[in-house]
Amino acid sequence: MERVITISREFGSGGRELGVKLADALGIPFYDKELISMAADDINIAEEAFRYYDEHIEVRDPLDRQFYHAFSEIYQVPMSDQIFVAQSNVIRRLASHGPCVIVGRCADMVLEDSINIFIYSKMKDRIKRMLRLEGETDEKEMERRIREVDRKRKDYYQYYTGNTWGRAQNYHLCLESGLVGVDGCLRAVVAYLGELCGETRN
Amino acid sequence: MERVITISREFGSGGRELGVKLADALGIPFYDKELISMAADDINIAEEAFRYYDEHIEVRDPLDRQFYHAFSEIYQVPMSDQIFVAQSNVIRRLASHGPCVIVGRCADMVLEDSINIFIYSKMKDRIKRMLRLEGETDEKEMERRIREVDRKRKDYYQYYTGNTWGRAQNYHLCLESGLVGVDGCLRAVVAYLGELCGETRN
Repeated sequence: MERVITISREFGSGGRELGVKLADALGIPFYDKELISMAADDINIAEEAFRYYDEHIEVRDPLDRQFYHAFSEIYQVPMSDQIFVAQSNVIRRLASHGPCVIVGRCADMVLEDSINIFIYSKMKDRIKRMLRLEGETDEKEMERRIREVDRKRKDYYQYYTGNTWGRAQNYHLCLESGLVGVDGCLRAVVAYLGELCGETRN
Repeated sequence: MERVITISREFGSGGRELGVKLADALGIPFYDKELISMAADDINIAEEAFRYYDEHIEVRDPLDRQFYHAFSEIYQVPMSDQIFVAQSNVIRRLASHGPCVIVGRCADMVLEDSINIFIYSKMKDRIKRMLRLEGETDEKEMERRIREVDRKRKDYYQYYTGNTWGRAQNYHLCLESGLVGVDGCLRAVVAYLGELCGETRN
């Protein structure tokens, strides 16, 4: 595998799990939240601000703005933009070091030559998966949370890339994980990459 | 394989080839243009009209309307709607007989329990593929034709289903065929179906 693989994902569809397993199968590094702290180191931004703005564009309501100002007064441009730029630089640096799997953070649009995957599933399957993973039982609250995270990711993607989130043609491979599970998706990705994987292994 | 597999496709991306090879790999029937004549038999519509309206909604310009009236004067509803209904009935009848692969004709939305695949690729790759297949050399003309067929398919899909053509979440699996070819896509589909295929074979 010579090229970086990016994974975009609906919340609760198993994107992180697919990323970890795929990186493992291909014997290459996996990056997700780690990107945040690497980017934080890069420009010396408080990690709390980083976590807050990760995949989240600047919001307009007064409370959020108060938080935003606490961190942004020393900067010329909005904090969310600075963090996007810092993360994009980290993504490019990682890609230049060799193949890896990167989840989220618009990596598909930041890199020019990546192989891009999108994973999603029906709301009912995502609720079930997240309740199981988190040992929770409140379906309504989980659905609310899933919709909120998806909305933020979608706004973030569309704001920074100008592209439509979930448009199949933006990606090389798009997989519904409810029908065959994350392991079924993993099999499909590895089969799709086929000879491209073989090139590294041999 | 207990379920029908539908394939939606951008023109020139290899959807028909994928369908034929997938049906062969799974040992189930393949339907494409055959649907047209089966539907024609069904309601006794002239096959010329059928070919004209296949994946093509009623158009507004005067010349087209003239053609339309020549065939539709004996009917109460627009010819394109009648053909859609006739094809949908054929699709449901085929699905009730057992698993098969159906290309196009909104089969993904006509059937409730199908496994739905979308295949696409970059314009430059589709032009190259179609020129090779048809032994042509005029790139500009081929691009014009590809855009025209795509526009018709998109309008047809959106008119009859109310859904967005190419939205990943409408399908179980979406594949870009330029990177790995139709055979790479076939490997990915078979791997994705995995145990679902195994169930039939055993």
